[in-house]
Amino acid sequence: MEQVKQAIEAVNSIFNARSVAVVGASQDPGKMGYMTLNSIIQGGYEGDIYPINPKADHVLGLRAYPSISHVPGPIDLIVVVIPAPYVAAVLREAVEKGVSGAVIISGGFREAGRSDLEEELRSISEKSGLRICGPNVQGINYVPNKLCAMFWPLVTTPGPIAVIGQSGTVTASIAEWSEFEGLGISGAVNLGNQVDLCESDFLEFFAEDEKTRAIALYIEAPKEGKRFQETLRRVAKRKPVAILKSGRTAGGQKAAASHTGSLAGIDEVFSGACRQFGVFRADDLEHTFDSMKAIATMREPQGNRLLVLTTSGGSAALGIDEAEQRGLSIPPLPAQLVEELKEAQSIPDFASFSNPLDFAGANIENFTEALPILDQFGVADIYLLIFGDPVPGGAEAVEQLAAEISTPLVVSYLGGGELERLDSVKMQISGIPVFPTPDRAARGIAAAVWNACYR
Amino acid sequence: MEQVKQAIEAVNSIFNARSVAVVGASQDPGKMGYMTLNSIIQGGYEGDIYPINPKADHVLGLRAYPSISHVPGPIDLIVVVIPAPYVAAVLREAVEKGVSGAVIISGGFREAGRSDLEEELRSISEKSGLRICGPNVQGINYVPNKLCAMFWPLVTTPGPIAVIGQSGTVTASIAEWSEFEGLGISGAVNLGNQVDLCESDFLEFFAEDEKTRAIALYIEAPKEGKRFQETLRRVAKRKPVAILKSGRTAGGQKAAASHTGSLAGIDEVFSGACRQFGVFRADDLEHTFDSMKAIATMREPQGNRLLVLTTSGGSAALGIDEAEQRGLSIPPLPAQLVEELKEAQSIPDFASFSNPLDFAGANIENFTEALPILDQFGVADIYLLIFGDPVPGGAEAVEQLAAEISTPLVVSYLGGGELERLDSVKMQISGIPVFPTPDRAARGIAAAVWNACYR
Repeated sequence: MEQVKQAIEAVNSIFNARSVAVVGASQDPGKMGYMTLNSIIQGGYEGDIYPINPKADHVLGLRAYPSISHVPGPIDLIVVVIPAPYVAAVLREAVEKGVSGAVIISGGFREAGRSDLEEELRSISEKSGLRICGPNVQGINYVPNKLCAMFWPLVTTPGPIAVIGQSGTVTASIAEWSEFEGLGISGAVNLGNQVDLCESDFLEFFAEDEKTRAIALYIEAPKEGKRFQETLRRVAKRKPVAILKSGRTAGGQKAAASHTGSLAGIDEVFSGACRQFGVFRADDLEHTFDSMKAIATMREPQGNRLLVLTTSGGSAALGIDEAEQRGLSIPPLPAQLVEELKEAQSIPDFASFSNPLDFAGANIENFTEALPILDQFGVADIYLLIFGDPVPGGAEAVEQLAAEISTPLVVSYLGGGELERLDSVKMQISGIPVFPTPDRAARGIAAAVWNACYR
Repeated sequence: MEQVKQAIEAVNSIFNARSVAVVGASQDPGKMGYMTLNSIIQGGYEGDIYPINPKADHVLGLRAYPSISHVPGPIDLIVVVIPAPYVAAVLREAVEKGVSGAVIISGGFREAGRSDLEEELRSISEKSGLRICGPNVQGINYVPNKLCAMFWPLVTTPGPIAVIGQSGTVTASIAEWSEFEGLGISGAVNLGNQVDLCESDFLEFFAEDEKTRAIALYIEAPKEGKRFQETLRRVAKRKPVAILKSGRTAGGQKAAASHTGSLAGIDEVFSGACRQFGVFRADDLEHTFDSMKAIATMREPQGNRLLVLTTSGGSAALGIDEAEQRGLSIPPLPAQLVEELKEAQSIPDFASFSNPLDFAGANIENFTEALPILDQFGVADIYLLIFGDPVPGGAEAVEQLAAEISTPLVVSYLGGGELERLDSVKMQISGIPVFPTPDRAARGIAAAVWNACYR
């Protein structure tokens, strides 16, 4: 357990740093040294920020220093954006200064044939205890500390999902979707060449992190296979983890190997291990996002019975197809319940009183009248509300319903234009997951049910 | 062939109407009679528009008439948005006036237990020759005639895809995505209760329509099974068709049946028929859109060899996984080609010179230098360019490349924020399909290859 404690402390010292120096801070908006410093400032970081640049007095309005050792106050974290050959010297200077953590964005190490430079970093870290994320990363973002030390993207919306990725772009895309949809993230990190901190360290941190409800992990091959296995087994007991792993096919394995230089292992064995540990293995990138969204946002479902309420019969049929294929059950409506629904003022006589309960029209009152009645009968464990075309007042009504009833609500909103985009964000901000198609909603719900049953 | 000719003429008389009356045109923005008239006006329709409303002199700035018979000029098409019990009388009046087509948006017929009212419409159509789309539809949109006679959505961007749907929402969502992404549509129609015109009629029309390059069809159960089969077989020879059909599972079949009141048939048999006819069967709603986008936009691939060029190694691994699983081949790069690539000025030494060709950085010059060299060697039938994170200048460069080289280009753009959204639209407007993830790109490409091989 010493290793676990050390991992959490190491990541914590980086994510919760109280002061940051950006080594290689630049005034040129096209450079990573500009983008990174800018992200830290725009992200609202409240600690001290020290741009390091020997040729400038000020960078982005902040007083700059020629080197780390010139900085008057203490530095917790350095973010390094200078050419690879100069990084080791900076790390040594940082050790002198008492810095505890480094995020090395700079590339040009092992991935560029310079394993020697990388070994130097590793050696400094091992000897000094300086903890390193990277090199060759886009950076780290820990929203609770408002520390977006990442050249891209700038994500500032606090949310329940942590993203760990062995690819900057994959990490960025999930984080960016979360931001765009109003869902937000707790943190994001990419692994890069992992001279020190690796996937297991970040998993340990997020497993204990109060702001994180679920972890999305993109991986090609773990740095430390055996430790990864043990970590996953333990972490998955505490928190939901969804893994997206490339290497399902020979070509994918080769591609992953040429990206990170490590063997992907046998894919079926990996799937088996995930099942055994209670780790959710996602099918693709959107499925990773959708399943994490559902798991992290929904109230935990108490079973697998899904009731679909819809304004669109066709969309409901598509959603139920996917739901059944993913193992959800579609219970019928008891006769007495149907009677009560028929008495509801707003629900038209020609509605289809079955599952799906098809109101055949985009009238939000249908939902607000029906749901409390359904809830009394306890007929399902999850309600999927399908909004087809614009549904005025939808977001407000769903927010209120979610507060009134105990069964988890999920929304699929499609064909709704600008109102769909605005209301989807509103609902997600208030904690109701929204999916752009009924198929994707069903996949997300199935992930949440899986998580409730098997984790 | 008489039936085919009649079908095309019937749909043509509606889609290419030179004058339109909206029966039930309303001044209340919340009503369908307002939304429909508004769509026709905003869509830029250039023929005569006659609002019919006995209580108003003007609606939406246009002179209104108390009834069809009061309209001074000829009327080609009526769009009906009045309560079901009054529709038959209006149709009789329309027949008197010499109207040839009707789009009946009004609901409240068979789906609401009033089969009697629906039979009346059918009888009028059969006796008079008046051709009807509906009732119980969102309407029709034929962009070449700038005729958006649909209460929702308003789609005005001309594009290569026609959408036919047994669900207003499914039709709306595909049309709306096409509009949002700059891809556009040729036409969209939903089938509703099909008292007269049905799926086969619209398929016949779009098969001959010059503006339509591919047809997306959402269906629960065809109205005329045997004719549908014959039509599909013939239409698929002329034009690519992607079908999304609900009813893969028992629950989905039940849901579809309760929506349209017809049996869905045995799912495997349907899949077999699609394969035999060369009709692409899509897995889900996004897959329908993605496959149609690829088929309608890409140059036809001459084989199944895919070369991935990427700024993101992780994304490439995910794309190649999906591509191999969908039957695409991932050819290696010949040694001589690699030599030439290494000599290219912009391509870094540490790039991964294999397939994927991983530039390991978001520099557009890498692509513009590499692609013409690759094209000389004829190493692949399709190039998938993966842009991870923002790639400044990407849209312009891709547009130019597409003009210079003969091999079809497809782009996957992810993690790129606002630039991604803007540039994706630009590229799609210029005819290059863009997908939000490498998985979806691979699925789209596989559909285009399938279409080139098996249709």
